[in-house]
Amino acid sequence: MKKVGVAILGLGVVGGGTYKILTDNKEYFKSTQNLDITVESVLELNKERALSLGVPESAIASSIAEVVSNPNVDIVVEVIGGVKVARDFVLQAISSGKSVVTSNKELVAKYCHELEAAAKKMNVGLYFEASCVGGVPIIRTLIDGMQANKITVLKGIVNGTTNYILTKMSQDGADYQDVLKEAQKLGYAEANPTADVEGFDSTYKLSILSSLAFNKKVTIDNIHREGITGITKEDIAYAKKSGFAIKLLAIAKNGPQGIEVRVNPTLVPLSNPLATVNDSFNAVFLTGDSVDDIMLYGRGAGALPTGSAIVSDVIYAAKHAGDYYYAPFKNSDTAEKTTKFVTDFSSKYFIRMRLKNIVGVLSKLTSVFSKNGINLTYVKQNAMEEGVVELILITDISSESSINKSIEKIKTFDEVNSVESVLRVED
Amino acid sequence: MKKVGVAILGLGVVGGGTYKILTDNKEYFKSTQNLDITVESVLELNKERALSLGVPESAIASSIAEVVSNPNVDIVVEVIGGVKVARDFVLQAISSGKSVVTSNKELVAKYCHELEAAAKKMNVGLYFEASCVGGVPIIRTLIDGMQANKITVLKGIVNGTTNYILTKMSQDGADYQDVLKEAQKLGYAEANPTADVEGFDSTYKLSILSSLAFNKKVTIDNIHREGITGITKEDIAYAKKSGFAIKLLAIAKNGPQGIEVRVNPTLVPLSNPLATVNDSFNAVFLTGDSVDDIMLYGRGAGALPTGSAIVSDVIYAAKHAGDYYYAPFKNSDTAEKTTKFVTDFSSKYFIRMRLKNIVGVLSKLTSVFSKNGINLTYVKQNAMEEGVVELILITDISSESSINKSIEKIKTFDEVNSVESVLRVED
Repeated sequence: MKKVGVAILGLGVVGGGTYKILTDNKEYFKSTQNLDITVESVLELNKERALSLGVPESAIASSIAEVVSNPNVDIVVEVIGGVKVARDFVLQAISSGKSVVTSNKELVAKYCHELEAAAKKMNVGLYFEASCVGGVPIIRTLIDGMQANKITVLKGIVNGTTNYILTKMSQDGADYQDVLKEAQKLGYAEANPTADVEGFDSTYKLSILSSLAFNKKVTIDNIHREGITGITKEDIAYAKKSGFAIKLLAIAKNGPQGIEVRVNPTLVPLSNPLATVNDSFNAVFLTGDSVDDIMLYGRGAGALPTGSAIVSDVIYAAKHAGDYYYAPFKNSDTAEKTTKFVTDFSSKYFIRMRLKNIVGVLSKLTSVFSKNGINLTYVKQNAMEEGVVELILITDISSESSINKSIEKIKTFDEVNSVESVLRVED
Repeated sequence: MKKVGVAILGLGVVGGGTYKILTDNKEYFKSTQNLDITVESVLELNKERALSLGVPESAIASSIAEVVSNPNVDIVVEVIGGVKVARDFVLQAISSGKSVVTSNKELVAKYCHELEAAAKKMNVGLYFEASCVGGVPIIRTLIDGMQANKITVLKGIVNGTTNYILTKMSQDGADYQDVLKEAQKLGYAEANPTADVEGFDSTYKLSILSSLAFNKKVTIDNIHREGITGITKEDIAYAKKSGFAIKLLAIAKNGPQGIEVRVNPTLVPLSNPLATVNDSFNAVFLTGDSVDDIMLYGRGAGALPTGSAIVSDVIYAAKHAGDYYYAPFKNSDTAEKTTKFVTDFSSKYFIRMRLKNIVGVLSKLTSVFSKNGINLTYVKQNAMEEGVVELILITDISSESSINKSIEKIKTFDEVNSVESVLRVED
């Protein structure tokens, strides 16, 4: 039976979950994987925390040097988070000849070119299943399950915090700020929620997933990003009335015009499986030229689901040692010059505005859209207070530039009180 | 670049799809996989069919001996179907030192112990991703993505034909026989539909998937099987009214009582993601001790989706040559004697019956259930023609034996005209 030594850098939520799985299921891995996996070393400043998890004192390292010089350690698990220390420690592990498993999406999105180059040089593995969509094996699926396919679309709900907030806003008809506060109290959102609610976390994941899906480097700078802080309960209510849920989608498309990558709040028809992904669940939808549509669904975060992905990588690394995946494209800190990116997105749009209720106003508006080549597929007026109506429009596929041009023109009309929201729609 | 020679046995629907993917995406596989894959040989009695797909005449073999003796062939794809010829040909391929990729669920379910033993002896690979759930990488997920988990539940819709029939019956309020005829006309059901509608196909898949999920041999003989031929449009209508869809589920559970494996029509709450899997789509839901719940969803059949799984196996076999998966349990033609199987299933039940509308009848019935330790969680009476009511009951989790005992007793009552259906319910 092969012996495998693991080190864990950081015993936070995910590190603790990883430690628990590796120790609780040690006998199970002997019988099912023919691997005897031992946590040989942990690096955790809070020694009490380590001891309370059952880590033997002898396995608590006092420095990264002690971890990476330990000859019994084959695989280093990095679950510290952040990029400064984590990057340094991972590079030290690699240059000491250890394979690395990480859940750190920011690190992978920003520095995988550098980490991979180092790993290649040392002939070790770099694994990051846990960086995207928690316990859902989306990266294994892209690398080892979808190889037959040219993937044309990848879209998903890849951030649990924002999905929890949007779900609650929808279910309770509540305001963004109130739900955010509740989510913070329950531990679903950070005290500083920016990384989640402004979409940064989703762009890290989309950078990783779209690069693997399209076999072309896509950096976070290539990704258009909009968060959910501007979404109101009115948007959600009106979307629902029109048959849609609002989800923060990470979307990547690869077509004849080039690659389109964006994170933005999106209206999804209630009949679309993504519309039923609620709370902190995540899901990723893929379209390939052979497989057609597939979807993977599961918990996007949490100690044990994310630990499941990390331990899966540990086992994979141990079983396929020497047989590592390196990107088949030029993995650099920028996209290749030959990669074209779409910046004027084509999409269906949902537009909500408030108008003075005057005869002829609708015809005046629709003629603006018509002049800009935009077809409207849904028009609904709702009476508001006296003399004011709320108008909901849904367009056919239109370029963002033509939508913006139309909205600018419309805003100049006296009959238009306000344009409340302009949101993209995905089928 | 590594050269890989492939032979395809059988150019039917799936064989044709596989040929198309391998030839259309040849350059793509060079750049993304660093593999130069060539279809060196095909075995197809209908030579016209092969030529019309673009197979060069020189690659059309006239016998299996010609295929397996071809030194340029590294991997043999078996897509003939059936077990007699396929088994013989696969064994010949293996004993000639070729790795085998097959989509043949009946072959794998019935003979994988024999094929795997032969493959082990020759140190070649045996791959069968395409045998279950078409293009969805469920087997790769079980083997390479869920290793960290003790899986406790696997349940899914793994047969497209029956799911199409049940979906149509639900959407159109149509009778089984009418929808079956339509499905046969459209090519979704075979002229002899037995393998699908009686659940045999699902048991083959469940045998394969549950063995991999639980790391214990589960044979088709261990699986309780009920088909959909007894499901009426009334069952579907009443289920829908009570908030459920009826699906043919393949269910495997591994608990303290032992392993429970069954294929049966099941009521699934409309809020369960499996309830929204319609038409010929398939989905598999897993629960693991770390990952919690995950679901994979996609096309369960078709030339290109199934071809996607086959080509994924071809690429995996080529990239991980020498590094093969063999079952970590005793892979025999029977389950191990130490494996306990549950035969008195515990489940919630949906019971529909017709009663004479007489005061006191409900109390007489409910006391029978109560005496057998069965809790009722839902009771609804619908008036039918004069003097007759339709009664819908849903029970809490109860053993099948206690349900059967209750039903037998109830059938003896004069007030009971008929027990129309007794179906299991899964949350």
